[in-house]
Amino acid sequence: MEILKVSAKSRSTAVAGAIAGVIRESGRAEVQAIGAGAVNQAVKAVAIARGYLAEDGIVIVCMPSFVEVSIGDQERTAIKFVVEKV
Amino acid sequence: MEILKVSAKSRSTAVAGAIAGVIRESGRAEVQAIGAGAVNQAVKAVAIARGYLAEDGIVIVCMPSFVEVSIGDQERTAIKFVVEKV
Repeated sequence: MEILKVSAKSRSTAVAGAIAGVIRESGRAEVQAIGAGAVNQAVKAVAIARGYLAEDGIVIVCMPSFVEVSIGDQERTAIKFVVEKV
Repeated sequence: MEILKVSAKSRSTAVAGAIAGVIRESGRAEVQAIGAGAVNQAVKAVAIARGYLAEDGIVIVCMPSFVEVSIGDQERTAIKFVVEKV
């Protein structure tokens, strides 16, 4: 499954469109963010995607969890949001 | 319903404990955060609360949305997380 990686510079509407697309296709999306700025953009994207999908009668929920990811030779703690159609 | 207000300085484990308590009592909690630092703490708190509640066999999901809030004479956009027992 493809993971949507979000940075602090990601446009939340663009990420929202990507989330909505993946949800429409498979019913489940994974979004990953490292750091407060990225987490904030990811959360805004989920809130916006919720609006996009509501127009089609699709309700989504999300669940954040911690995941360890390797970036180069560094271990970082990321937040993974699993977004699912109810 | 009481709203748990989270700031960038909130300890995420303390907020997680509060979320878990409200979920155990009523099955539903509302968490509000303004700004990236606060949103990040709120998301971490939900992830931690999920772990606390999983020990009791309780599964939670959350849904972020935008809300306008008045602080003094200023309008600010906050993120509201509705956290619910599945």
